[in-house]
Amino acid sequence: MPRTLKLSLAYDGTRYAGWQFQPEQLTVQGTLEAAIAQATGQSVRVVGSGRTDAGVHALGQVVSFETETALPCDVLQRAINAWLPADMVVLGVEEAAPRFHAIRNAITKRYRYLLHDGPLRDVFGRQYAWHVRTPLDAERMHAAAQHWLGRHDFSSFQTQGSVRTSTVRTVLEVGIQRGWRGERDLLAFEVEADGFLYNMVRTMIGTLVKIGDGTRPTQWAEEVLAACDRSAAGMTTPAHGLYLVHVQYGPPPEPGSPNRA
Amino acid sequence: MPRTLKLSLAYDGTRYAGWQFQPEQLTVQGTLEAAIAQATGQSVRVVGSGRTDAGVHALGQVVSFETETALPCDVLQRAINAWLPADMVVLGVEEAAPRFHAIRNAITKRYRYLLHDGPLRDVFGRQYAWHVRTPLDAERMHAAAQHWLGRHDFSSFQTQGSVRTSTVRTVLEVGIQRGWRGERDLLAFEVEADGFLYNMVRTMIGTLVKIGDGTRPTQWAEEVLAACDRSAAGMTTPAHGLYLVHVQYGPPPEPGSPNRA
Repeated sequence: MPRTLKLSLAYDGTRYAGWQFQPEQLTVQGTLEAAIAQATGQSVRVVGSGRTDAGVHALGQVVSFETETALPCDVLQRAINAWLPADMVVLGVEEAAPRFHAIRNAITKRYRYLLHDGPLRDVFGRQYAWHVRTPLDAERMHAAAQHWLGRHDFSSFQTQGSVRTSTVRTVLEVGIQRGWRGERDLLAFEVEADGFLYNMVRTMIGTLVKIGDGTRPTQWAEEVLAACDRSAAGMTTPAHGLYLVHVQYGPPPEPGSPNRA
Repeated sequence: MPRTLKLSLAYDGTRYAGWQFQPEQLTVQGTLEAAIAQATGQSVRVVGSGRTDAGVHALGQVVSFETETALPCDVLQRAINAWLPADMVVLGVEEAAPRFHAIRNAITKRYRYLLHDGPLRDVFGRQYAWHVRTPLDAERMHAAAQHWLGRHDFSSFQTQGSVRTSTVRTVLEVGIQRGWRGERDLLAFEVEADGFLYNMVRTMIGTLVKIGDGTRPTQWAEEVLAACDRSAAGMTTPAHGLYLVHVQYGPPPEPGSPNRA
């Protein structure tokens, strides 16, 4: 019987056409599967907790896969890392319950979005934070974002064409603060929820920026949410400011119980 | 009569074959000269305070050049930035004394070198800090580096083939500390001196790392200095951890006085 493994992964998304495997494209999934195949001698298909878009980074993407390899987890981690390029790294590998599934068993996910509002571009951060040339009021943005806490229909923040049936999600924590990593011009937005609609974080940022630059009042965040209409919200901001930070899983499912939806 | 301008520049050195103009190569100098030419409509030759090597970064490179343009400094800055690629930025432009020369009038320079000693590679820092897999003792390294304070013959730290006549320099400040930007695994070495020999900072780091990882005792830093022999010191470490931070200039030279050597 194959083992089910849970793997934690960080990557700089700059070079990649996103998470999901596509023929003829450099993808995170394809690169990881190739490295696991080299390390184990067996072809593999992995499941990622979320399909990050082109340019989106991860600090703690979680991946599940089945394998016949007998290699211990720490040896497997080192072997996979030896085959991965410098912009991807396996942070850990552990045994998982046989039915563990990185998408279906996720309870919450946490994303971060970095904004840089200095007058000049940051040559070192250009691929790691979105540059906004207007100074932003981080406290107003933080206050506005608090309207999104709790269980709501977030369809205003979903890019059209998504196939999800329910647009209701629960935001457990959300906030923004200036001074990320000690840099006065860097703002970090973080949001944790039980799930995210397509482009939800990037549309939240596009909305908050219009509040932070004074174009819209703080309560606009609430109005956008209530509208349940994508055209009510701000722009979808660039991918390169976005990081998948963490995915939380519950206890392994009972034998015979259905997977969480 | 042309104006002499002093320009301050930051760049991510990753893509560049170093500062100095070379035909058929992407260089920082060549890229800056092309942008100034576009902004002013006049070809130009610039002087940089130091010729950073391929992969070396700058937070405050200083450049002097003469120009016939009548554009005000702030307009010129914006125009040059509009022509520069995303990994270079002009931080400021100001009028300088007619005889100002970015190399000859420099009084001190400050360099930083970032080291990462975590067990796993940092996918975001891979081009911005040197990864050492052995844990380093930052306090021992700091203590060792204090032996280099003051006026010494630093020929042990100079790569052979340099053409400088004197190898005596004065180190005004030197030190290393863990926890750069709040990251436990990041160490920042900084050194300020009245001048640097070729590869001096990178050879200092190669020497300190052998003290930090326990291979050599703290006083080895003093022995290496006293040897006045490059083969006594540690390796020349990779370029991508190195940053030119700051260049200090004195008051403009008196009319008719010789330029500082």
